[in-house]
Amino acid sequence: MEMLEKGSALLKDGERIDDIGFGNFRLIQDPKEFCYGIDSVLLADFVSKRAGVSLDTVVDMGTGTGVIPLILCHKTDVKRVIGVELQESAYDKAVRNSLLNCTKDRVNFVLGDVNDVEFGWGSELKEKADAVVSNPPYFKAGGGIKSEVSAKAAARHETTATLEDFMKCAAYLLKARGELFMVHRPSRLVDICCFGRLAGLETKEIRMISPTSDEIPNIILVKLIKGGGSELKILPPIAVYDTKGNYTSDILNIYEKI
Amino acid sequence: MEMLEKGSALLKDGERIDDIGFGNFRLIQDPKEFCYGIDSVLLADFVSKRAGVSLDTVVDMGTGTGVIPLILCHKTDVKRVIGVELQESAYDKAVRNSLLNCTKDRVNFVLGDVNDVEFGWGSELKEKADAVVSNPPYFKAGGGIKSEVSAKAAARHETTATLEDFMKCAAYLLKARGELFMVHRPSRLVDICCFGRLAGLETKEIRMISPTSDEIPNIILVKLIKGGGSELKILPPIAVYDTKGNYTSDILNIYEKI
Repeated sequence: MEMLEKGSALLKDGERIDDIGFGNFRLIQDPKEFCYGIDSVLLADFVSKRAGVSLDTVVDMGTGTGVIPLILCHKTDVKRVIGVELQESAYDKAVRNSLLNCTKDRVNFVLGDVNDVEFGWGSELKEKADAVVSNPPYFKAGGGIKSEVSAKAAARHETTATLEDFMKCAAYLLKARGELFMVHRPSRLVDICCFGRLAGLETKEIRMISPTSDEIPNIILVKLIKGGGSELKILPPIAVYDTKGNYTSDILNIYEKI
Repeated sequence: MEMLEKGSALLKDGERIDDIGFGNFRLIQDPKEFCYGIDSVLLADFVSKRAGVSLDTVVDMGTGTGVIPLILCHKTDVKRVIGVELQESAYDKAVRNSLLNCTKDRVNFVLGDVNDVEFGWGSELKEKADAVVSNPPYFKAGGGIKSEVSAKAAARHETTATLEDFMKCAAYLLKARGELFMVHRPSRLVDICCFGRLAGLETKEIRMISPTSDEIPNIILVKLIKGGGSELKILPPIAVYDTKGNYTSDILNIYEKI
């Protein structure tokens, strides 16, 4: 009851509070803007299962309303997460989401641009991050952007920062042997491998996610290591739904239903 | 009977004739040296199914005993295949295999090094190939090579040419929009994407092959396009065996048993 009242007090016009579905986490979102999806949950779970480093300091590039830091606090023993977001409206929600979910002792948000990491918000974090995570914009700039609400467009298209920019930012922040975890579309895998390597980040693990086991993947999870050697491991794939249209046991496990 | 006699006449000491298993093709091999495997069959089949160009001129880099050109003649309407091989003993078998299988009007073999493409055997083929195919050495040089018979070692390890060398050779030979088809280990996928892009060849399609559908892939088939845009397509995977240990229908189809 106290939580509900607290949540209501934090809400602004047009916003709503959504239940993440596990861990008692709730999220302030504006349905007119970009809302988090299964991708963020898959990414945070991937970090919890595949991190090979101690998660003392983690940065979430393009954190949006802050859902990934929230889930990381629940699924890992991360000590400090810094969520960076360029859009003021999303940043503002992220700060309130941290208050709403009582994670402000572990999570900080920064209003900043991945392109400014070196001279702006990130200069004190240079080579300090054990891990960097990101659910970046999936689509290249151009083509049908103008028709979208701009905040939504920036979250989905590379209007302000490209995949290459995200890679450079991560490389700047990570310690040697630090790990970058990213969720993206399979169509961008070559870009991830190549821009990653150019930035000194080697793609080491890939997991493919498909709607059902009979379909081709529509999401990939990747782990890159700063200074890693060139040997890739392809992890077993995950299907979201079984043939009856129900969530698979992998997904139920990730959502902590079993 | 005539075929058998002809085959015997072409055999040298220590060699044997193996049946490819379809298309009445037979292959002279020396069991002490590198013998072709399912990888070559998968690659030739992949070319037959995924080529987006007319196969007038095709080059097989590191053709070994010439099995890929043979299967291409059977599975596609390729007009001319040039198989390039560095090792004299394998080249010699490739020439006899072409005689044995009556494909010498469509197949030529060249004793040559992929590193010499520009100034040697390949200068007349510059930007003339519609497609290039390769089942290159899978392993990096170094580590336990000396204990192997040298011909076998060169076929399996990058002792004389690296993946980067193969990419440069293919880029030299291919027409604009020409296609490179390669079979390799999943662990080298990042190298394929990055060395390919450096050479002007963009990885466009990947198919993963695993022993069974529950296992992670141990073979990948890739298609790269010279001057292609950066958008990757991940094709449905293929499993070799079903849960009972029998070949799957995909494999039976490739081996033309169904």
